[in-house]
Amino acid sequence: MGFLKSIFSSSDSASPSPNAISLEEYSAPGMSDRLGTQSRIYFSTDRSIDLYELEELCDSVGWARRPLRKVRKALQHSYMVVSMWEVRGSRKRLIGFARATSDCAFNATVWDVAIRPEFQGKGLGKALMSYLISKLRREDISNITLFADPHVVKFYGGLGFLADPEGIKGMFWYPN
Amino acid sequence: MGFLKSIFSSSDSASPSPNAISLEEYSAPGMSDRLGTQSRIYFSTDRSIDLYELEELCDSVGWARRPLRKVRKALQHSYMVVSMWEVRGSRKRLIGFARATSDCAFNATVWDVAIRPEFQGKGLGKALMSYLISKLRREDISNITLFADPHVVKFYGGLGFLADPEGIKGMFWYPN
Repeated sequence: MGFLKSIFSSSDSASPSPNAISLEEYSAPGMSDRLGTQSRIYFSTDRSIDLYELEELCDSVGWARRPLRKVRKALQHSYMVVSMWEVRGSRKRLIGFARATSDCAFNATVWDVAIRPEFQGKGLGKALMSYLISKLRREDISNITLFADPHVVKFYGGLGFLADPEGIKGMFWYPN
Repeated sequence: MGFLKSIFSSSDSASPSPNAISLEEYSAPGMSDRLGTQSRIYFSTDRSIDLYELEELCDSVGWARRPLRKVRKALQHSYMVVSMWEVRGSRKRLIGFARATSDCAFNATVWDVAIRPEFQGKGLGKALMSYLISKLRREDISNITLFADPHVVKFYGGLGFLADPEGIKGMFWYPN
């Protein structure tokens, strides 16, 4: 996988728009075969994502709706927020998302990984997670954890995540 | 389990000492039988814990040493830090610790739960975790998670934590 990095503004004007977020271009061999030559894919770690756009992505993968005020708070207090964008001409569309909580020192935990269904199966989920892992590693965080639904355990396994290493169990406490 | 709450200062002087941390007294039926009548147990959510005192606690449970600068950073950036103290006369001793990372909205993950060996088996680990859970619940965080070593899965199960609910797997990524 290769990263061709560049700064891209979502605003066409020379002065920064309040909705502009900084993006890094992503490219990989064969990507134009999978996505078409018109599409360009970008990553961002900017957390000023339009919450309705994020909700639309979450809806597309069938997640239960969550109160936007809590989503806003969760984004603000996540250690890292990464998003993936398709750009076609002047149109920019949120196609992937993931975020991580962390103590900024030892551990990070990845939450809310989503890729828009029509973009799944093209290596973009893997690219998004690799991008997040590389960003966390750059911050010297070594223990990256997550809780995987059964159908994505294999996907994360392919990225180097181990399920229950040394018998460690993921455990959940829910209110009664 | 009952909490008798009171504010306690570790400083004997009227003016606050930089090392004073605010404590809440913990009491439970039969506690004096288990700990002796001289001991009183306190909780704190103050994160200004002496790092050497914390390291001594971690040493006592056999954890690998970690750089103090990273421990300091992890404490600063944890969402919640809870500690448990034994007070005998004018002597105050750190006997338990736990912390949680969180997005302040949906999820919290508990790390570094330790009870000094000579205080284990007296219900204090359960009390410490219940205290942490109640604090997180008060902040409206509903999904409390952790990664449990095999020998403590039963302990957390007794507190209402479920291992691998609906087949969800805890997964870890370590650097090569």
